[in-house]
Amino acid sequence: MLYLVRMDVRLPHDMPPAQAEEIKSREKAYSQELQRAGKWQQLHRVVGEYANYSVFDVDSHDELHTMLSALPLFPYMTMQVTPLAHHPSSIR
Amino acid sequence: MLYLVRMDVRLPHDMPPAQAEEIKSREKAYSQELQRAGKWQQLHRVVGEYANYSVFDVDSHDELHTMLSALPLFPYMTMQVTPLAHHPSSIR
Amino acid sequence: MLYLVRMDVRLPHDMPPAQAEEIKSREKAYSQELQRAGKWQQLHRVVGEYANYSVFDVDSHDELHTMLSALPLFPYMTMQVTPLAHHPSSIR
Amino acid sequence: MLYLVRMDVRLPHDMPPAQAEEIKSREKAYSQELQRAGKWQQLHRVVGEYANYSVFDVDSHDELHTMLSALPLFPYMTMQVTPLAHHPSSIR
Amino acid sequence: MLYLVRMDVRLPHDMPPAQAEEIKSREKAYSQELQRAGKWQQLHRVVGEYANYSVFDVDSHDELHTMLSALPLFPYMTMQVTPLAHHPSSIR
Amino acid sequence: MLYLVRMDVRLPHDMPPAQAEEIKSREKAYSQELQRAGKWQQLHRVVGEYANYSVFDVDSHDELHTMLSALPLFPYMTMQVTPLAHHPSSIR
Amino acid sequence: MLYLVRMDVRLPHDMPPAQAEEIKSREKAYSQELQRAGKWQQLHRVVGEYANYSVFDVDSHDELHTMLSALPLFPYMTMQVTPLAHHPSSIR
Amino acid sequence: MLYLVRMDVRLPHDMPPAQAEEIKSREKAYSQELQRAGKWQQLHRVVGEYANYSVFDVDSHDELHTMLSALPLFPYMTMQVTPLAHHPSSIR
Amino acid sequence: MLYLVRMDVRLPHDMPPAQAEEIKSREKAYSQELQRAGKWQQLHRVVGEYANYSVFDVDSHDELHTMLSALPLFPYMTMQVTPLAHHPSSIR
Amino acid sequence: MLYLVRMDVRLPHDMPPAQAEEIKSREKAYSQELQRAGKWQQLHRVVGEYANYSVFDVDSHDELHTMLSALPLFPYMTMQVTPLAHHPSSIR
Repeated sequence: MLYLVRMDVRLPHDMPPAQAEEIKSREKAYSQELQRAGKWQQLHRVVGEYANYSVFDVDSHDELHTMLSALPLFPYMTMQVTPLAHHPSSIR
Repeated sequence: MLYLVRMDVRLPHDMPPAQAEEIKSREKAYSQELQRAGKWQQLHRVVGEYANYSVFDVDSHDELHTMLSALPLFPYMTMQVTPLAHHPSSIR
Repeated sequence: MLYLVRMDVRLPHDMPPAQAEEIKSREKAYSQELQRAGKWQQLHRVVGEYANYSVFDVDSHDELHTMLSALPLFPYMTMQVTPLAHHPSSIR
Repeated sequence: MLYLVRMDVRLPHDMPPAQAEEIKSREKAYSQELQRAGKWQQLHRVVGEYANYSVFDVDSHDELHTMLSALPLFPYMTMQVTPLAHHPSSIR
Repeated sequence: MLYLVRMDVRLPHDMPPAQAEEIKSREKAYSQELQRAGKWQQLHRVVGEYANYSVFDVDSHDELHTMLSALPLFPYMTMQVTPLAHHPSSIR
Repeated sequence: MLYLVRMDVRLPHDMPPAQAEEIKSREKAYSQELQRAGKWQQLHRVVGEYANYSVFDVDSHDELHTMLSALPLFPYMTMQVTPLAHHPSSIR
Repeated sequence: MLYLVRMDVRLPHDMPPAQAEEIKSREKAYSQELQRAGKWQQLHRVVGEYANYSVFDVDSHDELHTMLSALPLFPYMTMQVTPLAHHPSSIR
Repeated sequence: MLYLVRMDVRLPHDMPPAQAEEIKSREKAYSQELQRAGKWQQLHRVVGEYANYSVFDVDSHDELHTMLSALPLFPYMTMQVTPLAHHPSSIR
Repeated sequence: MLYLVRMDVRLPHDMPPAQAEEIKSREKAYSQELQRAGKWQQLHRVVGEYANYSVFDVDSHDELHTMLSALPLFPYMTMQVTPLAHHPSSIR
Repeated sequence: MLYLVRMDVRLPHDMPPAQAEEIKSREKAYSQELQRAGKWQQLHRVVGEYANYSVFDVDSHDELHTMLSALPLFPYMTMQVTPLAHHPSSIR
């Protein structure tokens, strides 16, 4: 099942740069692991914003929430989740 | 270049059903032609809404606007277009 | 899997009363059929509004969208769908 | 009488982790006590958000406000409360 | 129990004046009956708008919704209902 | 002349509890003084929120602003002020 | 007492031009009468919009509402009314 | 002096196509006349919308409003006007 | 040329009172200088808010921005600027 | 290809002035370099706001995002990016 997720990141301005880098580095590793597993199917940067639009393919709401809330950046993000259904005009 | 497009459809309640069906039928044919051409890469229904999220892959803003404004449902839709850039954590 | 759905109904003022009644009557029958099937688990009126909050329990986004878009009032409603996950403090 | 409540939690980033854990632990205990008492009938996580949708069944506005404002996380939450009435199509 | 209700009226421009007058006249009678019964405690015009802020004192959500949805102007109004609790600084 | 005022309070999380209590205590005393003087006619808690809806009866905009801006919590509140006029259906 | 009022006009597209002209002509006459009486102190067009910002100087909310609701364009306008108080830095 | 103007067009669905074409044709001629006169300096289509972003260079608010309100499509457009000042980092 | 400006002030809660007073004192002096020069024609307090509505009469966008950005409170304010044109019904 | 970008700057109030000046100075140099290269075609101050409207002319979404995210003020700005297409009435 597919979900469109928009994530907006806002790091506190007083976070030490080394801490920020460490969090982003873990985020990247975890994100790529989920991409390689076929769960995080798409990941696009929104132009001009510290934000992304992603598409996830998972088996349940619980699986998705478990994944998202485990993101190292989760405490610094706001997310909007939109469930996607099959479109009758889609050729896929 | 990728664009995320959200389309919301609102047909006038007094449109004759035959006219609505004819427009939707042309919309579907045109949409599938663009999908087969690789321009309209994804097309998903938003659950519970007469709306879709789509991803287009085109060479320019002008090419995208020409396509979108040629949709038979265009006069009855509102659209939000978001340009998407490469994300540094994407494995693609 | 659970989804919270808010539905707001807006019937055109010039719809003949008999037509409105016929649509509402079919809506009620279909809604009760889904409730009895355990799919539409809760249905509450929002006080002061021609709107409801509902909880659906279905197996997939596609199943939910198929149900919702088959509602006789669907062309006259706007919907907001929120996927719900297990809460770690829930005792259920 | 039923109320739908949406709660969004935002903890200050500089709250010491031990303090946060202590508050969440008391929140969980209190929440489960209210669930077992039949007051807090449902508690669902909103997917991708540090938020929940809940249904309360209480005798009065005052009883609900007293309960909600006693939540250990109350100072860190925003809430939206929607009173729910019987829906004429509900089979319950 | 008290509820603050804001009501905004929007009559269709093509409603015949006689019909509008008849509806408003029934609305006024019904409203005054509820005021005399102590249910509709306050009724104030919002300056510059075809809208009012009202306070209702009823025993349950169901009682309030039944009253509000019986208003002759109900199909032409949008409403926002806010449950009110006792304030600890109130001297009443 | 009547005004509906909605007040939302947001105290900084790092305010020392003793200071917060001292401000709230002065707020309560001042609020009750205005209530007893017949200026602050109603004061209701919004269920689930650190907010209130109030009705003031004063002689002028200046009198109201002088009162409101003298509230000990004023620097920590946002306010929305709505002037109320006589409603033609009101029986008062 | 001063009030800032923003008025946005929206005439139905199917209103016969002669009727629109007649309403606007009465609106202008009435507006100028109130301006000459010192009640409608300022009247400015919002650039690019069929809207105005106005300042009224009246003795009470009721007087203002009576005036505004008597405007020939009132049924086709939305209004926002903001009460204005003396500013401590004003030299007037 | 420069102004950024966003214009959104919404033609009534029941406007006869010939009338729509005639209005658009006059709009285009008038727009190009203003462009050639150096008043309407830029005119860009918003991708996916029946809308444009424009930059006007005129001597006063009155001159701009006179121009905009003379557009044949003016009754069918909403506009947002933003005054632009010199930016200290601009090299022009 | 006239501009309506709404200014909302938000001082950081941890600003030392002496610094706040010094800024406000300079703001008042500068504001009164501009009022006496006929540039800042009106200055009104929004009832219940730390905000004002003002009318400026200046020769250009640049002149206005230079004035506004020189306000001592400018770093702590948000502003909305609306250009005002002559209204055809105004008697001035 | 053209993009309209609105940038709003919000510097933390506790940033040392020297640091702020150093960032703004680098921002200005970088901005002027991009202007001279023909990439940043227009740069206008929004009157009364610490914000600008800009037009960029670049070859791709990726090129634009790379530029924008390299701005020294990027961590302190919010941006809205709107892709612009050729307008059929434009004479350019």
